[in-house]
Amino acid sequence: MGEDDFLERLGRQAASVERMLGELLSDAPRSDETARPARLVAAMRHGVLNGGKRMRPALVIESAALLGGDAEAALRVAAALECVHCYSLIHDDLPAMDDDDMRRGQPTVHRKFDEATAILAGDGLLTYAFDILAAPETKLPPAVKMELVLALARAAGPGGMAGGQALDLEAERRALAEDEIVELQRMKTGALIRFGCEAGAILAGAAPEQRARLRRFGEIVGLAFQLRDDLLDLTADSATLGKAAGKDAGRGKKTLPSIHGIAWTRARLAGLIEEANALLAPHGEKAAMLAALADYVATRKN
Amino acid sequence: MGEDDFLERLGRQAASVERMLGELLSDAPRSDETARPARLVAAMRHGVLNGGKRMRPALVIESAALLGGDAEAALRVAAALECVHCYSLIHDDLPAMDDDDMRRGQPTVHRKFDEATAILAGDGLLTYAFDILAAPETKLPPAVKMELVLALARAAGPGGMAGGQALDLEAERRALAEDEIVELQRMKTGALIRFGCEAGAILAGAAPEQRARLRRFGEIVGLAFQLRDDLLDLTADSATLGKAAGKDAGRGKKTLPSIHGIAWTRARLAGLIEEANALLAPHGEKAAMLAALADYVATRKN
Repeated sequence: MGEDDFLERLGRQAASVERMLGELLSDAPRSDETARPARLVAAMRHGVLNGGKRMRPALVIESAALLGGDAEAALRVAAALECVHCYSLIHDDLPAMDDDDMRRGQPTVHRKFDEATAILAGDGLLTYAFDILAAPETKLPPAVKMELVLALARAAGPGGMAGGQALDLEAERRALAEDEIVELQRMKTGALIRFGCEAGAILAGAAPEQRARLRRFGEIVGLAFQLRDDLLDLTADSATLGKAAGKDAGRGKKTLPSIHGIAWTRARLAGLIEEANALLAPHGEKAAMLAALADYVATRKN
Repeated sequence: MGEDDFLERLGRQAASVERMLGELLSDAPRSDETARPARLVAAMRHGVLNGGKRMRPALVIESAALLGGDAEAALRVAAALECVHCYSLIHDDLPAMDDDDMRRGQPTVHRKFDEATAILAGDGLLTYAFDILAAPETKLPPAVKMELVLALARAAGPGGMAGGQALDLEAERRALAEDEIVELQRMKTGALIRFGCEAGAILAGAAPEQRARLRRFGEIVGLAFQLRDDLLDLTADSATLGKAAGKDAGRGKKTLPSIHGIAWTRARLAGLIEEANALLAPHGEKAAMLAALADYVATRKN
């Protein structure tokens, strides 16, 4: 798949995801609910509808399409995943965590609103993600929804993303060993990306072997995402990155690129892409977009 | 039911819930997870295993028992609900929210650990609640689990507890009208208590009419809980309360007792108990414990 085609398709999907999120994050009351407070909804929208690349949703949508899953259900699952991702960014940005003032050229939620509202907006998005999965509008069999809820809760929970974030706090207090760094990253960023790919297989009702294949593919994309992130932090300038570069070194945080060097990292990234392509090979041309996504994650400039 | 019998049974149930929570909140890795970081688990345990009265879990357990639900499944649903309740306390206690140093005679999670860990412990508990509901160990049909996930997400989300908390922030900036105060309380404390009663009916596979009855019963218990809380804040001394009294007045927050007075509040509480008893009447003696719970909520001293 050519780069133009890829970016065009990614952009089209991002627009669908954005539209779905915009609808989901309204402050209109639903049948069995009282109205959502306007300021809370505004904070949630600010944290979500920010023009993100929607890479995780694209993984859900493409994995589902590859295995014959329903496109509308995939879009809703993708939106639920993006809500979890955005909640994690809102909480990560808080003064007690990374203390970031800006994200994607906009003030972070606690800067635009206030700290308490940012905490609640994150809490609200995390909770709402499970609402979206379970809601009748997500037209999937109950057993499939259940698998999605379980997989998302484990990817995001104390044994997944929240746990990885806790290890990251620890990394500021003491230098982690290399295997601890790998574990941290597998949890902090890897688990949610892996869920994106596995979710496509789950919602498509894929056979265990195919689900395991997509799960492994997602694991590889997660590893590549993090390696690329760490490499960019080491080598890119802040203008290209759109955020502060050199943050890890500045905080004394070791990463695999800072331990092993740039050449090792590039070779490792190439190896990961090779494995990703091998996993997708049985699907032929149908998997071109997923392959392009993996390649993009490993080579992106920001 | 006599007060001694009631307190003995409530204590026995609290001990079962405590045991279940202790097992669930271990740092042992599960089959498909990496290990949970020890410090995060310790913070989650500190926020949960604190000798609470476990009033919400008791509502789940008794509602389920009334309608013939499985006791083991009810205990797990009760534990999930308590995780959500405790997450909300951890986040409410944060400096950016209520800024409380002590809870139940112990330092709050952010005082015992640190603010970032408290945020993550809350996030972890909220996420884990959905894990507990969806996990294979919770032996309920997928469609029933799905209903529980949806009902819990709505009770806790932006149209429920998180939304109520956001309105509560607003109440510190401007005086709310009486109907806004009622709405706030229905969301902030009412929704989760109502879920406790409705969850028992859901997991027992109750008919819609019975589910609606338990839901209404839960609504009444929620209203009584909040009225009693506000009344105690107005009239009790801090020693009896085990926490600071007069906090609402101190912050200029209006409550129904502060608007309408003590006599009105007592009459309203009596009316609520009467309605609760009428709803339970068709169940006769089988509902004695639920009736005693409602009475306890409306008359407790702390």
